[in-house]
Amino acid sequence: MDRLRMEKQIAFIEEIDRVKQIYRRTILMDGSRNENDAEHSWHLAVMAVLLSEYAGEEIDLLKVVKMVLIHDIVEIDAGDTYCYDEVGCLDKRDREVRAADRIFNILPDDQAREFRELWEEFEECNTPEAKFAASLDRFQPLLHNYKTRGLSWKKHGITKGRVIERNSLISEGAPDLWEYARDIIEKAVDNQFLRE
Amino acid sequence: MDRLRMEKQIAFIEEIDRVKQIYRRTILMDGSRNENDAEHSWHLAVMAVLLSEYAGEEIDLLKVVKMVLIHDIVEIDAGDTYCYDEVGCLDKRDREVRAADRIFNILPDDQAREFRELWEEFEECNTPEAKFAASLDRFQPLLHNYKTRGLSWKKHGITKGRVIERNSLISEGAPDLWEYARDIIEKAVDNQFLRE
Repeated sequence: MDRLRMEKQIAFIEEIDRVKQIYRRTILMDGSRNENDAEHSWHLAVMAVLLSEYAGEEIDLLKVVKMVLIHDIVEIDAGDTYCYDEVGCLDKRDREVRAADRIFNILPDDQAREFRELWEEFEECNTPEAKFAASLDRFQPLLHNYKTRGLSWKKHGITKGRVIERNSLISEGAPDLWEYARDIIEKAVDNQFLRE
Repeated sequence: MDRLRMEKQIAFIEEIDRVKQIYRRTILMDGSRNENDAEHSWHLAVMAVLLSEYAGEEIDLLKVVKMVLIHDIVEIDAGDTYCYDEVGCLDKRDREVRAADRIFNILPDDQAREFRELWEEFEECNTPEAKFAASLDRFQPLLHNYKTRGLSWKKHGITKGRVIERNSLISEGAPDLWEYARDIIEKAVDNQFLRE
């Protein structure tokens, strides 16, 4: 056993405990509190397993699961940037790259490289796996918003047009899920959870 | 697209949001609050990916990841049973089987069967994947206890002998990790985080 290698792995496992403290704008379905990144990533991983049949192209499921498990780890340093925050999005990439440089490099070189590549692939959103992962990452908060009668949408004054713009990439990563998402958006408007 | 199938899948995805509200005895590494089952399961899934090289036998990593992602879903109904609670452990199996019957059957039949089988395999702890998954499920709270200077051990009056008894299955599921765990336990005693 290479003890130094194991110590680096465990140092990383300890570091990412902080993901449990990064709170998002998404509110739990019972409306009780905001969701954190660890909970969100777990939910996406289970969704990846259950919904893989709806991926737009053939996917490597293990790769998708790894991607969603680690996609928000950079937020330990960079914080959560609300997807409808146009100012925060301006320097998001810079903040997250610095975070990736620090955090993934806690790992042994080969694993640091694997995680960095998975994260970059997710960010670039060009492969079937990344497109499917990104679709889940959009669909899950949509469900939460619908189940909480638009709590987070209302709080931030979000309109139907912006929700469609933000989520339309689901039509490529998981076309059948996009059909379902469109229905939810219409029902949300009908029920006044979301402004026209 | 089979709409009814998708509706069952999404009903399950909504149901498991409650896993984020099942709090465990484990305390976050910064000592701030107890950990919940969604956070715990996410942490185990990342650990499965990073530590698979230490599995005692050859494993199917995707299967291990699925197992740790869903292993605590039954606690939505059955609640978290503290691993050192001898009374609570008496009817744990009954409570969890009833929960599995209800919750997994929200899914379409094929996926209900897959998840039930994965959960039973984890519980029986006889396959290489289940042994490795169980090892991670023991090792993670050990790390948390050590990093919090024994907060949860002290609160519940746990001794070194009981920690070794509880965790010794790691020696089979992930032998090198057990060596590391033994060192942690010794250091915990030396530092008075854990009673002899």
